[in-house]
Amino acid sequence: MLSKPHTEFDRQWQVIARGAVDLLPEDEFRAKLQQSLKDNKPLRVKQGFDPTSPDIHLGHAVGIRKLKQFQDLGHKIVLIVGDYTALVGDPSGQSATRPMLSYDKIMENAETYQKQFFRILDRSKTEICSNGDWFKKMDFREIMHLATTFTVARVLERDDFSIRMKNGVPISLHELFYPLMQGYDSVAIRADIEIGATEQKFNLLAGRVIQQAYGQPPQAILTLPILVGLDGEKKMSKSLGNYIGITDDPRDMFGKVMSIPDRLIYDYFLLTTEVALERLEDIKQQLSQPDINPMLLQKELGETLVDMYHHAGDGTTARDEFERVFSQKKLPDDIEELTKDRAVQLGLNADKLFLPNLLAKTGMCASSSEARSLIQSGSVYIVAETQHISFDEPVKDVKFEFPWPSVTTIIKVGKRR
Amino acid sequence: MLSKPHTEFDRQWQVIARGAVDLLPEDEFRAKLQQSLKDNKPLRVKQGFDPTSPDIHLGHAVGIRKLKQFQDLGHKIVLIVGDYTALVGDPSGQSATRPMLSYDKIMENAETYQKQFFRILDRSKTEICSNGDWFKKMDFREIMHLATTFTVARVLERDDFSIRMKNGVPISLHELFYPLMQGYDSVAIRADIEIGATEQKFNLLAGRVIQQAYGQPPQAILTLPILVGLDGEKKMSKSLGNYIGITDDPRDMFGKVMSIPDRLIYDYFLLTTEVALERLEDIKQQLSQPDINPMLLQKELGETLVDMYHHAGDGTTARDEFERVFSQKKLPDDIEELTKDRAVQLGLNADKLFLPNLLAKTGMCASSSEARSLIQSGSVYIVAETQHISFDEPVKDVKFEFPWPSVTTIIKVGKRR
Repeated sequence: MLSKPHTEFDRQWQVIARGAVDLLPEDEFRAKLQQSLKDNKPLRVKQGFDPTSPDIHLGHAVGIRKLKQFQDLGHKIVLIVGDYTALVGDPSGQSATRPMLSYDKIMENAETYQKQFFRILDRSKTEICSNGDWFKKMDFREIMHLATTFTVARVLERDDFSIRMKNGVPISLHELFYPLMQGYDSVAIRADIEIGATEQKFNLLAGRVIQQAYGQPPQAILTLPILVGLDGEKKMSKSLGNYIGITDDPRDMFGKVMSIPDRLIYDYFLLTTEVALERLEDIKQQLSQPDINPMLLQKELGETLVDMYHHAGDGTTARDEFERVFSQKKLPDDIEELTKDRAVQLGLNADKLFLPNLLAKTGMCASSSEARSLIQSGSVYIVAETQHISFDEPVKDVKFEFPWPSVTTIIKVGKRR
Repeated sequence: MLSKPHTEFDRQWQVIARGAVDLLPEDEFRAKLQQSLKDNKPLRVKQGFDPTSPDIHLGHAVGIRKLKQFQDLGHKIVLIVGDYTALVGDPSGQSATRPMLSYDKIMENAETYQKQFFRILDRSKTEICSNGDWFKKMDFREIMHLATTFTVARVLERDDFSIRMKNGVPISLHELFYPLMQGYDSVAIRADIEIGATEQKFNLLAGRVIQQAYGQPPQAILTLPILVGLDGEKKMSKSLGNYIGITDDPRDMFGKVMSIPDRLIYDYFLLTTEVALERLEDIKQQLSQPDINPMLLQKELGETLVDMYHHAGDGTTARDEFERVFSQKKLPDDIEELTKDRAVQLGLNADKLFLPNLLAKTGMCASSSEARSLIQSGSVYIVAETQHISFDEPVKDVKFEFPWPSVTTIIKVGKRR
């Protein structure tokens, strides 16, 4: 059971620590929070995002939600759009040098990022800047000065680098700059706290070294777990296609949530929603029961996420539709129904339906000759659904005729019609 | 025996190869020279100098003389004053990170360097530039682009780096940039050839990699031995004090040459003079004889160097004086001689010379009271020289009197008078 927080500090600490992997150094972190409450001076909480893909997905949102929690506690959020770090490319967790993106592409992505941040954060309480603001002004001497703050050995201690060195996988010299740049961002915005995924731990700690080298008190850091994608195996990422975009429409978002493995349900509640801590405990409890059917919780998760990123109520709608289409094996509700009366009206012989005619008269094809060529290419399906059997095969005979069916029968043309 | 060169190519190659350790890749080097002669288009021959100390010494001059040889063959010399590389500090052959020099100090040194270059090179046929010209204009993105041209492993292959890594001696990240900067200099001036000491081999080869990365044909390189200093052990360097500055006055220069160990005589002829190849062979021959007294050759070396850096004839003068002062244990010839007649003329009692009076009357001291205080401080010496004994002790008695001496006697006040 959760203990009820006794003080404002305890209350804040409970929110901050939710879902966190590391709070480092914890004593400094606590001291900064204490001081902030005492002086009534908000903490400056930083996170950087490299706009390397056009969409923010739930994986990115894990950090943004943590920032939202800090924001709701009254602290100052500073978002850094890493237009210049994106040029270098974060080597964290990479097993090979990333291609450098074009600056135009990065700026285009940065634009869409900024819009997406404020689906979660309160714009009026957020500072947002691009690290090009300071890096583009840095000259050779300043960059060399920055480089003096780290030794080669210390940079190469990073897990991904040391593994690459050991395996003889080339590390380009520019990659070593990534943690220094991210660290310098903390200097530029005078960060008190920086948050990031666990794979960012080295970069976040680098910020401490560099802030000290520039005469600033070092930030404390908070790391969050890496969100596993829909496949249940790999980190959620755009390039792997295993992601839920925060701008996905309600139906897609709900459907994708329903496709995650059961074992991820709790983590998704913890990391991607704002479900109350008590409810979280309860969900954990339920999932640990041997006779649980997790689908109800999974639907609750889908509904919650759709409501968060769309409008209240959109979650229920998406759920209802999902249940019709997938759970009850019914079909999307934008199918046009053809009654026998209507068929006759259209001039069809209801007792002996000639497929090309049917397609042309109902408007599913532009003409009966288009219908014939689509049938020849195998694009026309007849789907018969009963409680027990499902017939779903392409028709190949251009002269196919059939009597008015006794069960609901669906005719599909291609994937769309 | 030397073979007489048959063609202009052979003639030039013989001069170029003199004293060189590496000519790499030799086939490319030869092809560049062939092409240059064929097109009557001079080679662009580069050397960089970091103005880390105010004086150029004979160690630096090894390279400059090689440039002079290229210049005399009709090629174009491009000198790079490494004001920006000096900021980073060449880690070549260093066992620890060098302190970064202040830019003002570097610029002050650069000034004196430029003057000293043209004691050897023909100014009108030399291009001279500072690498700050291009590095100060480079922005963050260009610097990161430069960094992409090398991998960490490749930079760390450098002997000095790999030894430091192995021994756990810190290498600061900025040091890795040194070879990249030197390499980029070759891009900036479109070098055909770069010359440097053997310890520069890695940096010179880096130039090839970087020129290719920037779409230029790679330079060929020429390395020269490192000149050992007066101590016969270590690389000649200002900081070790084992150097002969090219602006040293004739007497100092000659004296320093006479202090080198015999085994360096040939190397100095080879690397620091323009003595003809036939004469070089001859010197080598003589030094290999078991009954040789190398002092004559050493004096020839001293005379040659003084003539090179001062005026023709200054070498002979320096030699003559050296022979008087050191070889014949005589004294410098700017000593004022006091005859007995002159002593009487000055009002001195020649049979009972009272030291303070003597010093005051001869003008060696301003007054007899100054003379007394100098005697008390132990600054006045009486030196009696005979064939067999040498008396050289400070006088401490302010009332010291002595009869007119029977041998030549020298009175010294401090170090100067």
